[in-house]
Amino acid sequence: MNNFWLSLKTDIFFGKGQISVLGKNLLKAGAKKVLLAYGHGSIKKNSVYNDIVKELKDAEIEFCELSGIDPNPRISTVRKGAQICRQENVDFIIAAGAGSVIDCCKAISAARYYNGDPWDFFLRKTSIKKALPLCTVLTLAATGSEMNAGMVISNEETGEKLASGSMKLKPRFSILDPEYTFSVPKNQTAAGIADITSHIFEQYFSYPTFSTVDRMSEAILKTVFHYGPIVLDNLEDYEARANIMWAGTIGLNGLLSTGKEGDWATHLIEHELSAKYDITHGIGLAILTPHWMKHVLDDSNEKIFAAYGRNVWNIQEKNDRKAALKAIENTADFFNSIGVPNSLSQLGIDSSRFEEMAESALKYNKIGRFKELSKEDIVKIYTESL
Amino acid sequence: MNNFWLSLKTDIFFGKGQISVLGKNLLKAGAKKVLLAYGHGSIKKNSVYNDIVKELKDAEIEFCELSGIDPNPRISTVRKGAQICRQENVDFIIAAGAGSVIDCCKAISAARYYNGDPWDFFLRKTSIKKALPLCTVLTLAATGSEMNAGMVISNEETGEKLASGSMKLKPRFSILDPEYTFSVPKNQTAAGIADITSHIFEQYFSYPTFSTVDRMSEAILKTVFHYGPIVLDNLEDYEARANIMWAGTIGLNGLLSTGKEGDWATHLIEHELSAKYDITHGIGLAILTPHWMKHVLDDSNEKIFAAYGRNVWNIQEKNDRKAALKAIENTADFFNSIGVPNSLSQLGIDSSRFEEMAESALKYNKIGRFKELSKEDIVKIYTESL
Repeated sequence: MNNFWLSLKTDIFFGKGQISVLGKNLLKAGAKKVLLAYGHGSIKKNSVYNDIVKELKDAEIEFCELSGIDPNPRISTVRKGAQICRQENVDFIIAAGAGSVIDCCKAISAARYYNGDPWDFFLRKTSIKKALPLCTVLTLAATGSEMNAGMVISNEETGEKLASGSMKLKPRFSILDPEYTFSVPKNQTAAGIADITSHIFEQYFSYPTFSTVDRMSEAILKTVFHYGPIVLDNLEDYEARANIMWAGTIGLNGLLSTGKEGDWATHLIEHELSAKYDITHGIGLAILTPHWMKHVLDDSNEKIFAAYGRNVWNIQEKNDRKAALKAIENTADFFNSIGVPNSLSQLGIDSSRFEEMAESALKYNKIGRFKELSKEDIVKIYTESL
Repeated sequence: MNNFWLSLKTDIFFGKGQISVLGKNLLKAGAKKVLLAYGHGSIKKNSVYNDIVKELKDAEIEFCELSGIDPNPRISTVRKGAQICRQENVDFIIAAGAGSVIDCCKAISAARYYNGDPWDFFLRKTSIKKALPLCTVLTLAATGSEMNAGMVISNEETGEKLASGSMKLKPRFSILDPEYTFSVPKNQTAAGIADITSHIFEQYFSYPTFSTVDRMSEAILKTVFHYGPIVLDNLEDYEARANIMWAGTIGLNGLLSTGKEGDWATHLIEHELSAKYDITHGIGLAILTPHWMKHVLDDSNEKIFAAYGRNVWNIQEKNDRKAALKAIENTADFFNSIGVPNSLSQLGIDSSRFEEMAESALKYNKIGRFKELSKEDIVKIYTESL
């Protein structure tokens, strides 16, 4: 395994009613004027918005609001949020929502102190020197953004969707109440589950192998595969929601990549899809993943796919290649079982922009550390996903 | 699962050569005068002591030393260390060694600012209000103290061995270089492995069940059971040492008890053995564990033991009780396979103090949350372990 540095600074408050620690922890962090940021108002349909406002009022903390953050959050919203933070002298941000809201707030927190345009962070023109502290109140188990340093933002002008990050963006604390995810509809719940599994795959299918970490990844996958169908059958099953929620956080807080490189090819080629067609990230991942697996499987890595099959799916097949193929089949079946679309054509996407997207995906990065993908590889994976 | 708060503040620098970050991180933490604390000099037989001193000198940080910390660290050493910190105006502690050294340093860091006797922390007469910051350079994979808030100290006057803790005691950072454990002899390596497995058992065999976390515990157990014999066969196998080391840290950093109660009966009744007979903690745990398992196994929990057997040992037996008993047998066989003694009599311990130890174990705490143990239960487990 590789050497690594692990810094898990975000405190987690997990469980029903944990919103009750919000005011106290904001005061402890010295918050005086808070930006409460959220999406298109689902937090007003359940109790989340009111619960947060009550905490703020009880703690006598002033706040202003930014609403309307999109599922693929936009750089224009980041600019707007940073402007509000400057005008209102905001000293702390509450990101109340899914990963999109959290990512947008991370970008706002850094943009607040940056004189240039915040898209520079994503073009790697500058690094993040300073950021407002933030916390999260999570309402969807999916991205893991609630305990990590990363963010993904879309640029509606250039049609790009790019990632960036900094240790300075790690939430100070995150409140994870599984009940806050009860009202997430079935299709979004399924997309979140697909996102979680994909995060783990990106880290699991990578070199070097590291048993302690790889076995943990298998553990989280087993949990998600077990509770995925259960939560979709009963959206208010607390135990299932709690398991999916905690799995989602651990799935991308850094632990499962300790000592490993990570692959991230599927994410990077999916970002092109959601940038160009504004599709749900998790759905794009679910469609691409089995095709990515089939495409990269070869003699050099079939043992890893076979281990995945045996340890996660309890496949007893002795032949590595057969076990690997069965594992990939099970993965596709799982995505089908949670009701997500299994082809790009179902989303109205045709092959017309595949070349363009493959080129765009390769514009800033090499793609794939488990197996590097050429433009032709990427077009092939898109085509097989049609 | 229960609600929980998780705060993993300790940064981890893992891998060969990571000592090179020590000076820089001490400076970043503002350290001006460091106490370098260690045990009976094994760090002078390998390169650890020299590596640390070089880092301190290169960073131009003054330091003083405390050596001779015992494997079951004593409250008298804590008092001595606190005295040195006061006299020498120490503002940062480096704990270079195994869990015993780290625990002793944690107690010293709190005792430094406490006007009463530090044994008060362990008698719960006072809580820890302030502590010196500390870091660790780990030389034995075992206790997990390098990333947690706990400590266990022995009182040689009263014959007690008690635990205490505070979030203020969490190491700022820990350097985990698997090569620093190469020189740990076979018997101590095995005792460390036994300690790690026991930590995971204490958390795994507890209520409520929580799949995300329980599956992770199984993952870590699988790794330890796999690499235990490998590392004992070749004490300088980097991959095996690294896996055992990271497993040991994750095994007791809080993650595997999220949402769960923990049992800790085996630890508490073992503490009596090492307090009275000064035996190696891990050896005591290895002897007691299979007998604790057999003693507490009943209709209400056999499913959990069976899950352990199936998920960790790949036992295919359908009947829960039979799978549970086979899992316990495998556990005992594992401890035998790593060459640790399997009976108290092998350590020269007879039944003469069993009653006294059982009473002492129950003096401050109820014992066992997975299954509460009476004095009679404890005596029976000791007796079966003879």
